[in-house]
Amino acid sequence: MQTYRHPAPFQLESGEKLQVLEIAYHTFGRLNPARDNIIWVCHALTANSDVADWWPHTVEKGCFLDPEKWFIVCANIIGSHYGSTGPLSTDPETGSPYYSQFPALTIRDMVNAHRILADAFRIDRIHALVGSSVGGFQAIEWAVSQPERFNRLILIATDAYATPWTIAIDETQRMAIEADPTFGLPNPEAGAKGLAAARAIGLLTYRGASGYNLTQTDTGEQTVADSLIPRNRRRPCTYQQHQGQKLTRRYNAYSYHTILNAFDTHDVGRRRGGRAKALAAICCPAIVIGITTDLIFPPSDMRRLASLIPGAIYREIQSEFGHDGFLVEHAKLNSLLLNFI
Amino acid sequence: MQTYRHPAPFQLESGEKLQVLEIAYHTFGRLNPARDNIIWVCHALTANSDVADWWPHTVEKGCFLDPEKWFIVCANIIGSHYGSTGPLSTDPETGSPYYSQFPALTIRDMVNAHRILADAFRIDRIHALVGSSVGGFQAIEWAVSQPERFNRLILIATDAYATPWTIAIDETQRMAIEADPTFGLPNPEAGAKGLAAARAIGLLTYRGASGYNLTQTDTGEQTVADSLIPRNRRRPCTYQQHQGQKLTRRYNAYSYHTILNAFDTHDVGRRRGGRAKALAAICCPAIVIGITTDLIFPPSDMRRLASLIPGAIYREIQSEFGHDGFLVEHAKLNSLLLNFI
Repeated sequence: MQTYRHPAPFQLESGEKLQVLEIAYHTFGRLNPARDNIIWVCHALTANSDVADWWPHTVEKGCFLDPEKWFIVCANIIGSHYGSTGPLSTDPETGSPYYSQFPALTIRDMVNAHRILADAFRIDRIHALVGSSVGGFQAIEWAVSQPERFNRLILIATDAYATPWTIAIDETQRMAIEADPTFGLPNPEAGAKGLAAARAIGLLTYRGASGYNLTQTDTGEQTVADSLIPRNRRRPCTYQQHQGQKLTRRYNAYSYHTILNAFDTHDVGRRRGGRAKALAAICCPAIVIGITTDLIFPPSDMRRLASLIPGAIYREIQSEFGHDGFLVEHAKLNSLLLNFI
Repeated sequence: MQTYRHPAPFQLESGEKLQVLEIAYHTFGRLNPARDNIIWVCHALTANSDVADWWPHTVEKGCFLDPEKWFIVCANIIGSHYGSTGPLSTDPETGSPYYSQFPALTIRDMVNAHRILADAFRIDRIHALVGSSVGGFQAIEWAVSQPERFNRLILIATDAYATPWTIAIDETQRMAIEADPTFGLPNPEAGAKGLAAARAIGLLTYRGASGYNLTQTDTGEQTVADSLIPRNRRRPCTYQQHQGQKLTRRYNAYSYHTILNAFDTHDVGRRRGGRAKALAAICCPAIVIGITTDLIFPPSDMRRLASLIPGAIYREIQSEFGHDGFLVEHAKLNSLLLNFI
């Protein structure tokens, strides 16, 4: 991981400023002399700039992010826990971490930060811009704001705005965090129990019925055929608990809360005359990929998104893993995207 | 509302006993001299025995629970907030409310309590047993344990066991309640913030994407076309907050937690040689009704349930309201059930 430090304050859409802007990033492969082999990947909620780590079997020889062929850039979103300026960063005005005083962000702020990084590297033209889930929020926002910068746009399990449904999911997670009264205290562990519950809520929406029923059925000695199994020995329960607690060991509730708030601001149509008009500005070939069982971004919404992007093609991945299909179904993704890129 | 007090301690499946068993119930219409016009309705999570209140346009002239024709009984489940013995009831051993010391319940315990009520009323034969959602858990359990007692079985948006998916949803709600450190304190308001978050989680699963997008889109001055709308003025956010807080004014976290735990014990196959064998015992005509957009009990699961009940017919209601379709689509339900009953 490397870190870029911007030499000036960073203006936020809200009117506030970040006095210090740092952006953590990873690159994979080599930039060719023509500087025309760049693929930029935008990451989702609790991921980081190490796309080879969180997106298995994509940054590999023969895959669509083949580092022998492409120069792959992934930058950590601002507000995150993973190196870019966020709630655990030091507020230069107080000398202490921001915690709950970190300013509100928007998706446009996240994209503006990454535009600054791309400009600093003199990356003028990007061959392909890739975003899945809320990484797609950033990708679509960037594509709309600088359509001439990209040769290809790849949008997976995402949308052009935060729907009432996705906002309700985020609000529910915030409610869980705020039910933990330690949220607000000036330490990195504040709100950890609430964060664990929020993560568990997120997981429900990422996996859905078929995802859980395929992977979390009680088996073996844990059969329900003959006896009542205590809650702490049932797989769906231990899974939710374990995943919730696991996140609290690698993430903080302030970043999570900040980023959920930013997601809800997403609307490429804002101050652009509406979504249809904004999306009509996209002028590069685009592919929109939906997942049959995605609860967050249902196929019907994905088809609507594709229909609003000029010339975009729509493809659907058959999966039992819901929204998480974008992480699980790498073979199907590679097969679709190797051709497209 | 009336209350029946059982003259003996009540044995629970766990081995524990309730020293006092009270069951709150409502009836509608009149029992005919032949005592053959009884419809028994089982209610879901936070509902009560007043089915005419929580299930609009069903207990009405011309509807499938027509009180001019049928004698309708609905009893409050034990563990609930609404009159039956539950966590806020006085523990005779301490003279104080049970709160967190209320014993663990199972679906079979809930059904056994209602069998006691039916026996006390000398209701031997019930014309139709109706259960929607986790009301259906009770209905199916009762039908399997006393198949000869019923002429008709009506199962709406439910299942023969708690799937890993439904258990994961319940566990997530428990995590939200337990993230509120007031849960456990000896007062009726304990865990209220956690309960509000739990309710909000439940609502996500009851309505789903189309339900929220149809009803919670920001409109009018709250448009996102031109400006960022603060969280506290966005409809999906205020809806989740409002519904969560509303529940805390009419329900308690101990009952909610107790009942979620009971749901997870649901498996008609337990100690009966498995679900297929248990369901094969049902000998009355049965109808199973699924809802196209139900996230909790997807149509594929509903069809599987119907296939395991001898001679059961399966019908599907087209709805955009997800699991809540069973409450919203009363016209479609009436049209299906008037014939069947």
